[in-house]
Amino acid sequence: MILLKNVYLNGKEQDVLIEQNKISKIAGKIEAGSAEVIHCKGKAILPAFCNMHTHAAMMFLRGIGEDLPLFDWLEKEVWPREDRLTDETVYYISKFAMLEMIKTGTTTFLDMYFHISSTIDALKEMGMRAVVTYVGMDMFDEKETQRRLNLAHSFLDTDYDGGLLFKGLSPHAVYTASETIFKEFKKMCREQDLFLHTHVSETQKEVDDCLQKYGKRPVELLDSWGILDEKTVLAHAVHLNEHEIELVKKSGAIVAHNPASNLKLNSGLMPLQHFLDKGLKLTLGTDSVSSNNSLSMIDEMKIAALSAKRAANDSTAAKVQDVFDMATKNGFEALGLKAGQIKEGYLADFMLVDLNNFALLPNVNLISNMVYAADSSCITDVFCNGKCLMKNKYVPNEEQIIADFKRACKELL
Amino acid sequence: MILLKNVYLNGKEQDVLIEQNKISKIAGKIEAGSAEVIHCKGKAILPAFCNMHTHAAMMFLRGIGEDLPLFDWLEKEVWPREDRLTDETVYYISKFAMLEMIKTGTTTFLDMYFHISSTIDALKEMGMRAVVTYVGMDMFDEKETQRRLNLAHSFLDTDYDGGLLFKGLSPHAVYTASETIFKEFKKMCREQDLFLHTHVSETQKEVDDCLQKYGKRPVELLDSWGILDEKTVLAHAVHLNEHEIELVKKSGAIVAHNPASNLKLNSGLMPLQHFLDKGLKLTLGTDSVSSNNSLSMIDEMKIAALSAKRAANDSTAAKVQDVFDMATKNGFEALGLKAGQIKEGYLADFMLVDLNNFALLPNVNLISNMVYAADSSCITDVFCNGKCLMKNKYVPNEEQIIADFKRACKELL
Repeated sequence: MILLKNVYLNGKEQDVLIEQNKISKIAGKIEAGSAEVIHCKGKAILPAFCNMHTHAAMMFLRGIGEDLPLFDWLEKEVWPREDRLTDETVYYISKFAMLEMIKTGTTTFLDMYFHISSTIDALKEMGMRAVVTYVGMDMFDEKETQRRLNLAHSFLDTDYDGGLLFKGLSPHAVYTASETIFKEFKKMCREQDLFLHTHVSETQKEVDDCLQKYGKRPVELLDSWGILDEKTVLAHAVHLNEHEIELVKKSGAIVAHNPASNLKLNSGLMPLQHFLDKGLKLTLGTDSVSSNNSLSMIDEMKIAALSAKRAANDSTAAKVQDVFDMATKNGFEALGLKAGQIKEGYLADFMLVDLNNFALLPNVNLISNMVYAADSSCITDVFCNGKCLMKNKYVPNEEQIIADFKRACKELL
Repeated sequence: MILLKNVYLNGKEQDVLIEQNKISKIAGKIEAGSAEVIHCKGKAILPAFCNMHTHAAMMFLRGIGEDLPLFDWLEKEVWPREDRLTDETVYYISKFAMLEMIKTGTTTFLDMYFHISSTIDALKEMGMRAVVTYVGMDMFDEKETQRRLNLAHSFLDTDYDGGLLFKGLSPHAVYTASETIFKEFKKMCREQDLFLHTHVSETQKEVDDCLQKYGKRPVELLDSWGILDEKTVLAHAVHLNEHEIELVKKSGAIVAHNPASNLKLNSGLMPLQHFLDKGLKLTLGTDSVSSNNSLSMIDEMKIAALSAKRAANDSTAAKVQDVFDMATKNGFEALGLKAGQIKEGYLADFMLVDLNNFALLPNVNLISNMVYAADSSCITDVFCNGKCLMKNKYVPNEEQIIADFKRACKELL
């Protein structure tokens, strides 16, 4: 049991009791004799962030090939380096990526990358929660399709035992993965009640190419293949027409918005407020550092809000509570987790922030301050599933995690 | 004398000697017996930021009236509170604003607000450098025009003695200040070689109204009044046509870009890369927290880069070095200061950043990491004019500055 004494919540100081992995009680004053007491005067409790689209192990590519045209960047800078990745380097890089996530208040993320058993090893050690997905990218080569399907089966059959791991499958995108990959992955996901994750309608070119190849737009295509449902997470989803918005809405599929990446790669401006008005399930993700270049959900909230006002041509669009909910509540809810809010019975995934940090003053509107003014220096403690991941700004073993990461980068860069 | 030992600069560890207010020597190894030695292993030295457009004392309004329509926000939330400001509250608020600037690496700023003698008092105590300007806003009322001119004269006649203060005058904007204010202010500025600062072409409405009232666009109007020259700083400058871009270019006037504010208030998207291509003098500013809501130039650089890529419809626009220069070198140069670069003979305005901070790893491209990934947690020390303003993340007296600010806010909010 952990007892947070005098923590600022909903406009006043309260006590919050954590039992096992849940927030068990919130009250003005709680007595809990045997609990470990954390004195929180001057600190507020907020839900942790849920990063709904990232590629953690791309962390080693931060700052590589900056400002190059897309294909020069991918072909000359990214792909040759990715080819050198090994299970060992991915393990160290993933730990470092998780360190950055913890430092910036994230406890839970949806990941799509290679060498995933290393990511899973790192996840368990760091104490975070994630949906780790196997990527299906066959480039329409039938041999590769079969190989990918076999590997997906073997991933799902492997028992990774324990930890806060959820498995999922990720057909990469309609321009890199075949109908077979999409359909078979979805079938496997349905059999085991897992999430399917994919990139969709990130660029106008993707939409145009899809129309030319399939006679359908990407979301229409996914719908016709039976891919869309409440356990499908669509990353980017920048370029949807009204029909596609309806398809997403009806299916209950989840949108993972990546505003920084969409701007940095000049993919386009997602009409966030329009999607909110239509009632889509909107969540937020950072994408990888390759196109961001940060895993901070705090940065991402500000960019989401600002770019949405621009997209809507309306300064009242993307209200702070809506944006904060996208980064917290909506993500956890989409993943079927009772978390993302500080309420009794909810999972104890939260952060403590220092209300005397310059960026949170004056404390008139804490949510607005978090969206527009905060940075990682505001966050003092992070808990995931009832367990402390960062205490007084220190993550256990962080020097070693950084040293290992630097060594892995030296091998790869 | 201060000797920075083994500080990372231009890709290697070097020693940097500070004498009085300047960087006097940079070399692989410097011996300076009597110097105070600062061991900088694992830290990089970077130029400090120059924030070219802000209203420091609006700090008390952070988070107030969030997401309201513009006029509801101004009339109901901002103006009534501003009316309650006093010299004393502005003094405490300004000190706090400067604390936030120091914590985020800024040493120098261009300020426009009321109760400026209080801002100047705060400035001296905090050890920062600023152009503090008196605002002319007469709303075309002749009596008010005269009163403002008298007050401007009295401001310029007052000897504030010492400190790093530069005086300036700010006709507020073409929709709030008369031709007389603009012309007389410019005359006074020319007589004393001071900066004139103004808001210009922030919104399309301002341009339309100006065309209707004067038959000219705002920059054309300023040009016809003889306002534009190398000592004129134009804040916002979002909506310029090609003719106006030429006028700005020919005159040598300085543009202070405020991307966060422009997006938050939905003022528009300045075509940054186009302005860079045209050779305009581009600098960066945060505007006030009322429309940002942060004074962090680090945040501002990321938003500048991302929004410029969107404006140019080109992912290679707004290259990281250009954006970093806007936040550092260009601002200092525009103000006629030999600062903003880490070179011998330059003013010792710099920050030290922790190269082991998560956001600066891997250290492949430090400038890219500063623009896209950094936050205030990376900055350990800040020097202005050779004097240490923040040491190991601590600004002298910061608890008191925060306590005073909170008390002032209580009176005003």
